[in-house]
Amino acid sequence: MSIAGVAEQAGVSVATVSRVLNGHSNVRPETRDRVLAAVETSGYRVNELARNLRTAESRLLLTMVPDFGNPFYAEVVRGIDAVARQHGYFMLLCDTGADPGRERSYFDMLRRHRADGAICLDPDTVQHALVEDAGTLPWVACCEFDADMGVPWVGIDNYRAAGDAVRHLLSRGRRRIGLINSDDGYLYARQRQEGYLDALREAGVNPLPAWRRNVYSLDYEAAAVAAAELARQPGESAPDAIFAVSDTLAIGAINGLRSVGKRTPADVAVVGFDDISVAAQIDPPLTTIAQPMRELGETAARLLLKRLADPAASVPGVLLPHRLVVRLSA
Amino acid sequence: MSIAGVAEQAGVSVATVSRVLNGHSNVRPETRDRVLAAVETSGYRVNELARNLRTAESRLLLTMVPDFGNPFYAEVVRGIDAVARQHGYFMLLCDTGADPGRERSYFDMLRRHRADGAICLDPDTVQHALVEDAGTLPWVACCEFDADMGVPWVGIDNYRAAGDAVRHLLSRGRRRIGLINSDDGYLYARQRQEGYLDALREAGVNPLPAWRRNVYSLDYEAAAVAAAELARQPGESAPDAIFAVSDTLAIGAINGLRSVGKRTPADVAVVGFDDISVAAQIDPPLTTIAQPMRELGETAARLLLKRLADPAASVPGVLLPHRLVVRLSA
Repeated sequence: MSIAGVAEQAGVSVATVSRVLNGHSNVRPETRDRVLAAVETSGYRVNELARNLRTAESRLLLTMVPDFGNPFYAEVVRGIDAVARQHGYFMLLCDTGADPGRERSYFDMLRRHRADGAICLDPDTVQHALVEDAGTLPWVACCEFDADMGVPWVGIDNYRAAGDAVRHLLSRGRRRIGLINSDDGYLYARQRQEGYLDALREAGVNPLPAWRRNVYSLDYEAAAVAAAELARQPGESAPDAIFAVSDTLAIGAINGLRSVGKRTPADVAVVGFDDISVAAQIDPPLTTIAQPMRELGETAARLLLKRLADPAASVPGVLLPHRLVVRLSA
Repeated sequence: MSIAGVAEQAGVSVATVSRVLNGHSNVRPETRDRVLAAVETSGYRVNELARNLRTAESRLLLTMVPDFGNPFYAEVVRGIDAVARQHGYFMLLCDTGADPGRERSYFDMLRRHRADGAICLDPDTVQHALVEDAGTLPWVACCEFDADMGVPWVGIDNYRAAGDAVRHLLSRGRRRIGLINSDDGYLYARQRQEGYLDALREAGVNPLPAWRRNVYSLDYEAAAVAAAELARQPGESAPDAIFAVSDTLAIGAINGLRSVGKRTPADVAVVGFDDISVAAQIDPPLTTIAQPMRELGETAARLLLKRLADPAASVPGVLLPHRLVVRLSA
């Protein structure tokens, strides 16, 4: 479909479509939304157009992740990439290692107009450090966010999702429910821990500190070691279930339990978080909280495009739904 | 360590270090190598320096992968990123979807000096299409390469590695060895298939076409379906072992075999390829061909930096060793 087709579908002139695609602010928000919707539903690729229209824009969007290697980020990034491309932008991925210095360097690209906007998946603690000098730059917080930061955001309700995981384990008769957590520099880690603790207390279970491990990573190996440690504890200190805050940690945990002769779910049930693609492949298949990974990325990209099109408009935060996926591990 | 320290360690002046870091060509290759080695062993981060030295360079390197979601690429990309950063470059990752059009768009960034160089992991078929109009641009082929293309490259010997996998299965008494392959648009897929076929023939086994499946992806699910199909075939057509050209395919295959009541390795042994981190976590742990993923990335980055420092120099191809990792799946 041509740009004329998009204009017709949106009921506007070709010049208006061009203004929207180039991010000019003299377009009414309703009109802009209609044009973007027409672009999206038409499957029209604006790359070709973008190349012909000479503008001061870089047509580059940056996505900052703390770790290339986590399969969770890969799915989110696919969503960002798809929407960016559809709107004539290139998305480039940056690995910040959750290092504020590296993140600041990438934000320099925005400041010097070498990129148009950014989506940040780094820990909220790192984002906070940025807000002071980069609060006015066009960026969006994805998955990690603080609604009070004044930056558009998209994420899920981590507190409630963790509670759902724990309540599922309680409903299967488990009481000594352990927690393998990552790094409480992340808001999601703190919120999931709160959700875990409150769900247990509401069920009349006193959550023992001995049931919890922070492994400060999302690596399989670290979780395997932690789970083996938990399982080897005496009596009440040994959990009969484990909630892990990511699927990578849950898969590692099942392996660690196996290494000390504990079967999942017979001896220790395990629930993960994310629903990455390998979760359904392992034996036993993993019960987990599914995050809408692709939609998180797509929504972040749309929020950023809105902000680019109209820097003055207030862009809302978006909370997306999670979902408990029951398989055989719990 | 300061830039003066690097200069001292390399036995050159500070001005020479600065010339090397800025990619000027008026530096003798031996001197350049010494300076880069000093930078690398000193752990000195040149970011700070790079920011202060005003040059026409973008200090951006692009890495093009066909699919963000494949854990194999994530490890390679980490290696590229580490070396790039150590030399004061930012690495940005692009998902091309193995689409020549998208790849060409990213190469336009090189042409317009918005990026300094690129590392390409796309299929050799796609690379060939590029060579005509981008052969003179500074890029390096990684994992996928054609030594005759005139582009610096790094990879492994896929033919021999596949043979090693098959010979391992033969040594365990398997004869009806199947193949789950991805997409023969990739050189690695064609070479691994050749290695598989020749290793069987050398052992006096006639490889039946019924033992082979191309799934045109690296997705777990596709391999699960293919393995279940293979296992359900009658008599001699049902393999007693499967060689899968990636760990993701091998993990999917084990799951597919399980779904039709076949145990691994008792009924059907399985060997994968790559040694991604989840390979050691599953039950049974996966026997696989380990690729030096991180070193592949690091080497690609070093080749590119060499080419940037001296565009006229001939940069050699580099073949890195693979390794059979025997675990319990075969």
